[in-house]
Amino acid sequence: MAFSERVSRLKSSLIREILAAAQRPQVMSFAGGLPAEAMLPKVEWARMPVSMGQYGMSEGEPALREALAQQARVLGVPCEASQVLVVSGSQQTLDLAAKLYIDKGTEVLLEAPTYLAALQIFQLFGADCLTVPLEADGPNLAQLRSRLETHRPAFIYLIPTFQNPSAVRYSEAKREAVAGLLDEFGVTLIEDEPYRELTFDGGSAKPIAGRLKKSSWIYTGTVSKTLLPGLRVGYLIASPDLFPHLLKLKQSADLHTNRVGQWQALQWIGSESYQQHLSELRGFYRVRRDAFQAALQTHFADLADWNVPQGGLFFWLTLKQPLDTRTLLDGALAHDVAFMPGEPFFPEPDNHHGHMRLNFSHIDPARLEEGIKRLAQVVRQVQAAQAA
Amino acid sequence: MAFSERVSRLKSSLIREILAAAQRPQVMSFAGGLPAEAMLPKVEWARMPVSMGQYGMSEGEPALREALAQQARVLGVPCEASQVLVVSGSQQTLDLAAKLYIDKGTEVLLEAPTYLAALQIFQLFGADCLTVPLEADGPNLAQLRSRLETHRPAFIYLIPTFQNPSAVRYSEAKREAVAGLLDEFGVTLIEDEPYRELTFDGGSAKPIAGRLKKSSWIYTGTVSKTLLPGLRVGYLIASPDLFPHLLKLKQSADLHTNRVGQWQALQWIGSESYQQHLSELRGFYRVRRDAFQAALQTHFADLADWNVPQGGLFFWLTLKQPLDTRTLLDGALAHDVAFMPGEPFFPEPDNHHGHMRLNFSHIDPARLEEGIKRLAQVVRQVQAAQAA
Repeated sequence: MAFSERVSRLKSSLIREILAAAQRPQVMSFAGGLPAEAMLPKVEWARMPVSMGQYGMSEGEPALREALAQQARVLGVPCEASQVLVVSGSQQTLDLAAKLYIDKGTEVLLEAPTYLAALQIFQLFGADCLTVPLEADGPNLAQLRSRLETHRPAFIYLIPTFQNPSAVRYSEAKREAVAGLLDEFGVTLIEDEPYRELTFDGGSAKPIAGRLKKSSWIYTGTVSKTLLPGLRVGYLIASPDLFPHLLKLKQSADLHTNRVGQWQALQWIGSESYQQHLSELRGFYRVRRDAFQAALQTHFADLADWNVPQGGLFFWLTLKQPLDTRTLLDGALAHDVAFMPGEPFFPEPDNHHGHMRLNFSHIDPARLEEGIKRLAQVVRQVQAAQAA
Repeated sequence: MAFSERVSRLKSSLIREILAAAQRPQVMSFAGGLPAEAMLPKVEWARMPVSMGQYGMSEGEPALREALAQQARVLGVPCEASQVLVVSGSQQTLDLAAKLYIDKGTEVLLEAPTYLAALQIFQLFGADCLTVPLEADGPNLAQLRSRLETHRPAFIYLIPTFQNPSAVRYSEAKREAVAGLLDEFGVTLIEDEPYRELTFDGGSAKPIAGRLKKSSWIYTGTVSKTLLPGLRVGYLIASPDLFPHLLKLKQSADLHTNRVGQWQALQWIGSESYQQHLSELRGFYRVRRDAFQAALQTHFADLADWNVPQGGLFFWLTLKQPLDTRTLLDGALAHDVAFMPGEPFFPEPDNHHGHMRLNFSHIDPARLEEGIKRLAQVVRQVQAAQAA
């Protein structure tokens, strides 16, 4: 049996195992990134035209592309509908970008930590993943400059707004500085913003893609976090030099994104009912965030440090006494608690012990306190055992 | 700008240009492979559970996997639901298979001619595409054996039932012989059957995957030709040794297939109303096939040879006086007729002049005769010009 060389880099299924374990109904899961069931909007299908059942264009539905371009321009990303490609969830943007840029040994530049599934697909295609450390307000600029002076990455992949996993939102100053550095060194930007609309303090900063003067860029978003992930409708917007290649790669991947989901997304994007839904969603998650923060204060104040997330779906904890948090998993699951160890979010997991990603959007509030309490107990037990 | 090496193999957009030109309303198009609009069934959405809006499993909906496995067992492919992976249209099976098997220079074995988009994605990943010639009842067996004796292809890709583009359906004897050869040489089979249910003479032969005793296999199908292509719901069924890798590759490509389309497909697969719809569809396309055959007899009998397709969506013409049919395109489009030249369906187009693929399912019957007549005139004109 001869598989491709890349298959040897398919990662083991630690994450899949955690999420599978978290499916058991008795488990209190902080592991996934699921929207709350209660906040999935009721949608109507009765008016959908029969023609949505036919094959469609690889680019996506023209009216949806127009609406997405309009939305991006309002955010400060100058673009036309002709630059918009509808994709099968923004995960597909990463697949297309990997195909466009990555050969074995191609250097790419990522935040540390970064989105796990991005890391995995870039590594699958053979990328050499360089990193720049994230601070509370964005990347360390000195280290970013240093990386760019000494390497020629094919692209930099950034999640500047409520990052998964760290919840970091770049400051205005760092957005501007990063754009300047990318222009200075001529590095292509891939900017991933699934969480932008899940803001709890009302802040909305212009994307970095909209600040570039010269560099090529791909800006990607999705309706998965704000409407219905089951539709699998995301989008990318690309600088005109990249678009034709991405379009061909999209066509070869799956011809086009399902039109049923595209039609449904179009009913919402730019509408007043969407604005109202977003407002309710932010309020709902803000309450969950606050309850989670209270539970963490009670049980984790002596164990870990964290920033209160101003958006997104996650708390990112840094243990005061670092340990490999993967070693907490068995104990946590034995007590019916699931969480995501921080190590896999780094290209070199063993150099980054001591972080935990906790999702606050999906847990039943009635079980939140008990789950956090049990998780803290597991941390204490393992730390005590290691100290002994 | 440094793209990956594979991007240099992204094909030029001849086909895209033809299909774009065919969009003009005045064009009589034999170029695409679209189902007839009139035969898209009316579907109901009112009973879809809200939970279909949430993220789902990468494997696909459990009930749909069960239904697809059941359907495959009836066809003669022994399998369990655990071997079924729901994909975003069967095009995605080709993407996953390319990732699983193909490095630069990997040999794969294909029918000549073969499905254009398969050829393109295998070449995109760097495959060295070997071929075996198709005859009216399947591949030339002596040449297949010879290829297998002298090469070790990573897989063989076959469309044994109403192939796109040639409309060939393998005979019982050749199905059995091909399975025997693949077992003898230990070659993995990828069997693609989008057209199986579009049979006009009621024939239904057991898939080759169901005849294998030892070799690994991937069997792939779709609801695009029989239900609604806009759902983008296909599936693959794989031997257990391949499944875990394909699942991880699926997850990294787009997390999972849209659940809305999966739910709709499940309402049909295995149902009586689906059987009834298929029966109506076969009758409808049989009538179109017969009308097309009559028009071809009138206008092409002295120009080309062809077999009357017993299923699928295409006539495959072989000109009596071969010429590069790509040179017919400008003239045809100037007369508002679109068709698909045969050359791109071969890995070495310049060695295979003189074929044309004509779709009979989508053309308005009222314009069929005029379209065929104009196309024949273009062929005559170009042949006369070349003879002059």
